[in-house]
Amino acid sequence: MPFVTIQIAEGHSIELKRKLAQAVTNALVSTLNTKPEWVTVHIDEFERENWAVGGVLHSDKHSGRHDEKTTK
Amino acid sequence: MPFVTIQIAEGHSIELKRKLAQAVTNALVSTLNTKPEWVTVHIDEFERENWAVGGVLHSDKHSGRHDEKTTK
Amino acid sequence: MPFVTIQIAEGHSIELKRKLAQAVTNALVSTLNTKPEWVTVHIDEFERENWAVGGVLHSDKHSGRHDEKTTK
Amino acid sequence: MPFVTIQIAEGHSIELKRKLAQAVTNALVSTLNTKPEWVTVHIDEFERENWAVGGVLHSDKHSGRHDEKTTK
Amino acid sequence: MPFVTIQIAEGHSIELKRKLAQAVTNALVSTLNTKPEWVTVHIDEFERENWAVGGVLHSDKHSGRHDEKTTK
Amino acid sequence: MPFVTIQIAEGHSIELKRKLAQAVTNALVSTLNTKPEWVTVHIDEFERENWAVGGVLHSDKHSGRHDEKTTK
Repeated sequence: MPFVTIQIAEGHSIELKRKLAQAVTNALVSTLNTKPEWVTVHIDEFERENWAVGGVLHSDKHSGRHDEKTTK
Repeated sequence: MPFVTIQIAEGHSIELKRKLAQAVTNALVSTLNTKPEWVTVHIDEFERENWAVGGVLHSDKHSGRHDEKTTK
Repeated sequence: MPFVTIQIAEGHSIELKRKLAQAVTNALVSTLNTKPEWVTVHIDEFERENWAVGGVLHSDKHSGRHDEKTTK
Repeated sequence: MPFVTIQIAEGHSIELKRKLAQAVTNALVSTLNTKPEWVTVHIDEFERENWAVGGVLHSDKHSGRHDEKTTK
Repeated sequence: MPFVTIQIAEGHSIELKRKLAQAVTNALVSTLNTKPEWVTVHIDEFERENWAVGGVLHSDKHSGRHDEKTTK
Repeated sequence: MPFVTIQIAEGHSIELKRKLAQAVTNALVSTLNTKPEWVTVHIDEFERENWAVGGVLHSDKHSGRHDEKTTK
């Protein structure tokens, strides 16, 4: 019955979500005593103007600059 | 002060949400020692491409097939 | 696949939780197009010192006074 | 590592979210032994038809009446 | 900034939690464009009397029978 | 109706929780168009062995070293 919620920034493709759900499910199956069909994964996307670190919204930090990896 | 979060697939009508909120509130009032005005219900809809069981996205499982009851 | 989280104060008996889980599951089955075995209910109990309304902790409001219904 | 989730009705401007994230981060820094850059704030907006108190959806309660402060 | 919440039954050893946190973090790093230090994992353990499927509490279903894999 | 969830490490005193609930409620009242009695705050404490950044449990990182501010 594991239930996994993954909060990430919006804007990922369905191919990427497909891989993410599969990889996280595998991670649970390989470490917990569980079966794939018992694992539920929920991807909860947030908008950049709804997420802040250090009191600064992501949409303010990263506005029109570069890719996620470089700027985060 | 009960606070209830209901995670369901998106695409339900407002009539259905109205009945759902009423029925769940009644369920809490009839079993807990509480009053209706203390019960908050939050319906949290997820997109089918953001939910997976067994590592497979719902949008992949149910793509263009049939109604929710039959395919789930 | 509905997933329901019920946040209530700690200290309810298992008999009450049993009735609550049953009543909420029935509420979903009777209003949504779903089956009981697809409904998951999670009861998330909070301590009174971890919950505040109007900026005042419940443990401060209700300290040693009376039952939940009267004071809430 | 504090992680704060703020559930509010949708429809707030980005200026307001900016002030909200800043004010809540400051509240944590000034009361907990933490630094701003350790505080994450997530604003989780709900639609009025997805939120009910007393079993009545907000969208039914407040339909076309007045501003948030007056009607809530 | 991915934030992952894993809801599982209570009673897992710290060794297992260590492996779980590592495996899930790796799953995110290998599929998303992110770094390990940006990934936060929260393990949220529930008691068996606080979780129900089909309206039946886990503590009622599995009482004194066998291991998690067999009975779930 | 704002509902705020604050996830922090366990082990904070009730005096600190009291100040935290008050400060966060004030932050919402001063920035949003709301009243104190509409704001609910939930403090959700996690154990250090249930929280990981970079795939490493907090209980492993900070074991018997120093205070929260220095080590985090």
